[in-house]
Amino acid sequence: MTEITRRTLIGSAVAGGASASVGISVANAAAPRANQQVPGLYRYRIGEFEVTALYDGVWHRPIDDKFVRNADFSDVRKALSEAFMQADRLATPFTTLLVNTGRKLVLLDTGTGGQIAPTAGTLDANLTAAGVDPKAIDQIVISHFHPDHINGIKNADGKLIFPNAEIMVPELEWAFWMDEANMAKAPPGLRLSFLNFRRIFSDIARDVTRFQPGREVAPGISTIAAPGHTPGHTVFAVQSGRESLLVLSDTTQHPALFARHPEWQPIFDIDGDAAVGTRKQLLDRAATDRMLVTGYHFPFPACGHIVKTATGYEHVPALWQPSL
Amino acid sequence: MTEITRRTLIGSAVAGGASASVGISVANAAAPRANQQVPGLYRYRIGEFEVTALYDGVWHRPIDDKFVRNADFSDVRKALSEAFMQADRLATPFTTLLVNTGRKLVLLDTGTGGQIAPTAGTLDANLTAAGVDPKAIDQIVISHFHPDHINGIKNADGKLIFPNAEIMVPELEWAFWMDEANMAKAPPGLRLSFLNFRRIFSDIARDVTRFQPGREVAPGISTIAAPGHTPGHTVFAVQSGRESLLVLSDTTQHPALFARHPEWQPIFDIDGDAAVGTRKQLLDRAATDRMLVTGYHFPFPACGHIVKTATGYEHVPALWQPSL
Repeated sequence: MTEITRRTLIGSAVAGGASASVGISVANAAAPRANQQVPGLYRYRIGEFEVTALYDGVWHRPIDDKFVRNADFSDVRKALSEAFMQADRLATPFTTLLVNTGRKLVLLDTGTGGQIAPTAGTLDANLTAAGVDPKAIDQIVISHFHPDHINGIKNADGKLIFPNAEIMVPELEWAFWMDEANMAKAPPGLRLSFLNFRRIFSDIARDVTRFQPGREVAPGISTIAAPGHTPGHTVFAVQSGRESLLVLSDTTQHPALFARHPEWQPIFDIDGDAAVGTRKQLLDRAATDRMLVTGYHFPFPACGHIVKTATGYEHVPALWQPSL
Repeated sequence: MTEITRRTLIGSAVAGGASASVGISVANAAAPRANQQVPGLYRYRIGEFEVTALYDGVWHRPIDDKFVRNADFSDVRKALSEAFMQADRLATPFTTLLVNTGRKLVLLDTGTGGQIAPTAGTLDANLTAAGVDPKAIDQIVISHFHPDHINGIKNADGKLIFPNAEIMVPELEWAFWMDEANMAKAPPGLRLSFLNFRRIFSDIARDVTRFQPGREVAPGISTIAAPGHTPGHTVFAVQSGRESLLVLSDTTQHPALFARHPEWQPIFDIDGDAAVGTRKQLLDRAATDRMLVTGYHFPFPACGHIVKTATGYEHVPALWQPSL
């Protein structure tokens, strides 16, 4: 077999590139390049429900040695490298979930609203590509109040993106972020999230529905308290007929770091110990019962399963189905 | 935290489903279900080249205790289960690659032509969704002559699907499958592939271009002999500027079985020992040099990287990029 190395690949590529670049233009191309990505959409059925994974893009978040409170930065860097991420940047993909129950269109979390990173904010375009008018969304259910989950409620001008949707939020989450004493004692980074919460919710507070975990927020969509990441962090069980989907929200951030190392405590977990407990309990149950799961920061299209390993958990992406 | 089990999920789902089913109809749905999957397409850039992964669907291939020659069926079943595949069925996804070099549209392998499994044959529809006319394809380059790689050259009526494309095939592959003595001594299953080869190529034999591995079949697309799976099995290096992609063809079938267990010899590897050698050499090089790779039977969109583990190799899917 011909010896192939990156060096020879690049060597011949440089030569090939040089000759191929002569005369390349759109005019003599066999076909124009598309020059754009396809929509970040994926559909699957849960019983009678049609679920659509809507990609809001990815933030390559710069991280430093304080990012994981209880791990050596060299170990964190190693995990990034093993996941083929950029050096010192955590790939943070965002996938929101649209559930069509047949009666209602329910959006679980709302994405970044294009206000977090230039490489994120594609939810609107992908919703349009899915053929769904933002005005048709009946309900928004929020897992917790970090900016990448609630910013998509409003655009940068403060207008509601989903004007006809009832907004449902966890009661405990509301109480925590609304509390002025909590804001006063928050460190600077967290304080920004308190202010952001007020920016989004202060003028619509009276229209927001607060729910207790355990409540079914729509037929077939139940809510489960999963505290630690934030005090009121909530996950969802989507159920129709005999099929179900566990929506893990931010139980783990990117699984290549935080499912593989469930004991790691990233700085954004407000109660690190509680978050680790919740994470292990939910991942363990998902693995044991071979549940179909999705996670907000799992690689798009973000649905799959969890397996337990000797040291942690792995996300096994579901195979892309060519039809529903 | 509320206790969540599959039993309670299903229990409440049954109840919820029963009440929710009352009165559900398209007429009172908030929005009609899409009732169809999105196109199986994904684009990425290799230097100046635009690559499009085109999904041709998946065959859930029934397998028995003879499927892997040198592994216990219980171990094969365990690997299927760990990859969340159906019992005794190997998920066999098909992803062909369209390379737009700026001058030429080159299709690497042609899919099943809808002639392998009812759940495969979506290449045509996905090509249309990509905005590419089959008549615009300039070149088809074939990795080897198994039916799922060549059947898409012709439709079921025997007409060329890509009428303007030059068809390029490995010289050694041509010699092997054209040889009447090889066909005469082939076991029944393999004999069908010999006959299928004749069905596709007999009336277009004079128009087919045969190449030696090592040859660049188009500027930036080189060919590398990778024998074992078939005698003339060929992989490709796509190179533009300083970027490259190693197209592994059938070096491994589904990576959850054959990258994880590179020493396993499935019945379709004509020379099992040679295939294992090729597989280990290519996967090892891909892992060592952290090459971007794609595989014809990798889960769609099939591009990513390879990491070496204590016992084999793992495929790490590339993160879905929201833009090119």
